Amino acid sequence: MGKNKILLSVLAGEIGARLQGTDIEVSGIAGVDEAGPGQVTFLSNPKYADQARETKASAIIAKHPVPGAGCAFLLTPDPYLAFARAVERFHPPVRLAAGVSERASVHPTALLGKEVHIGPFAVVAEGAVVGDRVTVYPGAYVGKGVLLGEDTVLYPGVTLYEGVRVGKRVLLHAGCVIGSDGFGFVPTPQGYLKIPQVGTVEIGDDVEIGANTTIDRAALGVTRVGPGTKLDNLIQVGHNVEIGRDTVIAAQAGISGSARIGNRVMIDGQVGLAGHLEVGDGVMLGAKSGVASSLSAKENRAWSGIPAMPHRTWLKMSTLLPRLPELFRRVARLEGAKTAGGEE
Amino acid sequence: MGKNKILLSVLAGEIGARLQGTDIEVSGIAGVDEAGPGQVTFLSNPKYADQARETKASAIIAKHPVPGAGCAFLLTPDPYLAFARAVERFHPPVRLAAGVSERASVHPTALLGKEVHIGPFAVVAEGAVVGDRVTVYPGAYVGKGVLLGEDTVLYPGVTLYEGVRVGKRVLLHAGCVIGSDGFGFVPTPQGYLKIPQVGTVEIGDDVEIGANTTIDRAALGVTRVGPGTKLDNLIQVGHNVEIGRDTVIAAQAGISGSARIGNRVMIDGQVGLAGHLEVGDGVMLGAKSGVASSLSAKENRAWSGIPAMPHRTWLKMSTLLPRLPELFRRVARLEGAKTAGGEE
Amino acid sequence: MGKNKILLSVLAGEIGARLQGTDIEVSGIAGVDEAGPGQVTFLSNPKYADQARETKASAIIAKHPVPGAGCAFLLTPDPYLAFARAVERFHPPVRLAAGVSERASVHPTALLGKEVHIGPFAVVAEGAVVGDRVTVYPGAYVGKGVLLGEDTVLYPGVTLYEGVRVGKRVLLHAGCVIGSDGFGFVPTPQGYLKIPQVGTVEIGDDVEIGANTTIDRAALGVTRVGPGTKLDNLIQVGHNVEIGRDTVIAAQAGISGSARIGNRVMIDGQVGLAGHLEVGDGVMLGAKSGVASSLSAKENRAWSGIPAMPHRTWLKMSTLLPRLPELFRRVARLEGAKTAGGEE
Repeated sequence: MGKNKILLSVLAGEIGARLQGTDIEVSGIAGVDEAGPGQVTFLSNPKYADQARETKASAIIAKHPVPGAGCAFLLTPDPYLAFARAVERFHPPVRLAAGVSERASVHPTALLGKEVHIGPFAVVAEGAVVGDRVTVYPGAYVGKGVLLGEDTVLYPGVTLYEGVRVGKRVLLHAGCVIGSDGFGFVPTPQGYLKIPQVGTVEIGDDVEIGANTTIDRAALGVTRVGPGTKLDNLIQVGHNVEIGRDTVIAAQAGISGSARIGNRVMIDGQVGLAGHLEVGDGVMLGAKSGVASSLSAKENRAWSGIPAMPHRTWLKMSTLLPRLPELFRRVARLEGAKTAGGEE
Repeated sequence: MGKNKILLSVLAGEIGARLQGTDIEVSGIAGVDEAGPGQVTFLSNPKYADQARETKASAIIAKHPVPGAGCAFLLTPDPYLAFARAVERFHPPVRLAAGVSERASVHPTALLGKEVHIGPFAVVAEGAVVGDRVTVYPGAYVGKGVLLGEDTVLYPGVTLYEGVRVGKRVLLHAGCVIGSDGFGFVPTPQGYLKIPQVGTVEIGDDVEIGANTTIDRAALGVTRVGPGTKLDNLIQVGHNVEIGRDTVIAAQAGISGSARIGNRVMIDGQVGLAGHLEVGDGVMLGAKSGVASSLSAKENRAWSGIPAMPHRTWLKMSTLLPRLPELFRRVARLEGAKTAGGEE
Repeated sequence: MGKNKILLSVLAGEIGARLQGTDIEVSGIAGVDEAGPGQVTFLSNPKYADQARETKASAIIAKHPVPGAGCAFLLTPDPYLAFARAVERFHPPVRLAAGVSERASVHPTALLGKEVHIGPFAVVAEGAVVGDRVTVYPGAYVGKGVLLGEDTVLYPGVTLYEGVRVGKRVLLHAGCVIGSDGFGFVPTPQGYLKIPQVGTVEIGDDVEIGANTTIDRAALGVTRVGPGTKLDNLIQVGHNVEIGRDTVIAAQAGISGSARIGNRVMIDGQVGLAGHLEVGDGVMLGAKSGVASSLSAKENRAWSGIPAMPHRTWLKMSTLLPRLPELFRRVARLEGAKTAGGEE
């Protein structure tokens, strides 16, 4: 893979960096430990400077040169961005050849755009509209009346229930389920009665949704994921949730019904949010935190813990938690000093 | 959707409510913010009274009329129940047309009931028995000898391993897996030896199981989900677990092997339960709680926290957690008052 | 199932146990409560001795005989191991008949070993190499250039993205996804830019991966799961993670990108690990713990809590947590004794 050769000076221009060192040809990119001669690598953090000195790579993308390193440098104020561009340069995205497999099941009323790829055993149901250059991998299911924007990709086994609307350039990873019924029941003396879930889901442009993530359809109305938002694997999004734009949510987080998550929010892994609350723009939630009520970045930006508290408070608190037994002993000692009958 | 017109007075009769206001025709139901003229909406909680005054809906299903609201009211002691019925009235369930796709794979020894729907790329394996009016969406897999009760629905990509038994009127959402091997291994000097998982899973009538939820088959015997029980998305149910009837479990909860969960238990999101314990009838477990030993509602009904403690204790405790650093300082101050060498 | 008869004395020899009691024929194995005459059962823990006395089984696999039990005993120092062997004796694994379904989609360039089974609606893409005796259940997807070692089994709906390498005797349960894109984005003023994930995943021999578990491909390089390692259901493994050999990970655990997990590690359910940390050989992580930094078994073997602390500390601490409100009162009382203006 990625065997196209390019001069370091040319690569520098393409990725927005400045070359320091000899201008030789390179042909690939790899991690700092794995990279060999003729390859470029990447240093995100100055604390890995030792690795940089030991790398066999021909050039390192970095913010500053590492003294003592024998290779060239591609210097840039934003090495992460330059790295992303360099990876794409050596591994340009490959689109599957246009065509509809004879072994796919495409309903005659479905509308297919230009140059779509529909793999074997994929289903495109009645009235679905598939935008230009959409890729539907084998075994994916596009329900009745679903809308798929241009250049969107459905990996194997994705399920889109009836009526779901997906924007342009969306990546839906294998096994994710969009539009399943929200979890709504009314207790009755005869057991739970299902509240029919007759709303839908709308996924904005440029969204990515991870493998086996589930997004429930609204009871009434719409569950929304805003444009540019990225969801990792195994996330649960409940019915009528609204997520803003450019928000990132890490794996196994769960968002209960009717919660409203703002723009540019960052939610770390295994976080849980209760229903009907609001998380304001720009809030950051630490891993495993449990959010029971609305949070605003104006009050405080980063939150952690169960229940969520300001991250700095949580850091102090959590350092002291293991010392709780000691604190009990100290208080008992103080009480003992005061009275004859101190507890310990 | 849902364009059939009905007089408010007739709707009131159907959903068990009393009309207060003008008897006009309505044709749909929507959320309080989205509903327009000719539509009904719903007020679950008096604290949303402001929304009720601003709604454009023609009628509101509620417990009490909202002073100052300009629309009609459908009054009932149980608005949630009336709401569920009204949604169903405007969105009656649609069953897919009976028929077996030529592109499905149905084993000649499988027994199919009347009016079943088997979609393309679905598999019904050897000796499976499919009840009347069962719907199997595309790509679902019904293993060898599986039993499916009447009116059960398998959404796309559901997998039922060999021998699993599913009751009547069960809804299995996309990607759920029932009957995968339980997690059982014996450590040996040569590594882990798998304990063959040769039991099965039994799902009662009227159960609903969420998208991508997994239920493991028993090592020996049966993993059971009782009738009327509702499981949300991405839940893990370990081998030999027994769950009673009319229990509800929210998304991403996990139940370890051989745990026994009673009837009418409520388990909130991301809860974890250890193996071999018992959770009594009617117990409620708060979100993210961690249950390490058996709990009974006789002792206490609602539990929260890690490890689980009575919910009221947890509420008090968790409010104090962020003040733990302060408490350490206060104790150090007390100690300092007592001796010269106080810590702070 | 499992109707082949065998003398207890013969069975004892096969499973490494010693018969105490009458040598009769048995024909199956079942749980201690369900077993009937002619069946063998199993006692892992002496505390279940009452069940042993009440069982209707003809023989019990156990470490020591239970006084007062009326049946025979198969005695062994390792009853769990003998049990596993006995289950396998009565339920020998069944391999699906060799053959490639006409309804599978196998690319002409794919290489299939001997006696492979490829079910209907399975896909084997361009250049994939499928080892001898591999079983691919319906609807599984084997991407471009994937390597599958001998005797590996893919249950329905498994997705292996392009280039993933899987060892021998691996069990991949339904719906697991291997090789989906890692979660890597660079923030830019125009929103997040995706870092192309161009590495791969390598799964060692004798690995088992649970239903709906997800393992992301590396950004560059390889995400690795070592030989003999067992993963339960709904686990997330981030990009560039390395997991050693003979490690067991329970359901719903999550491992963030670039974490390195050693050999013979035990990770319990719903544990979360931050990225770029190291968990040493032999470490044990208690259920729901949150690991934010590297841990070594040399320092301490078992860890629990959020953040993770030595398990023994956590046990003491967590017992005291519910008493935190009491501690606040006691400290206020001490302060009150000291000054007139004590808080309570």
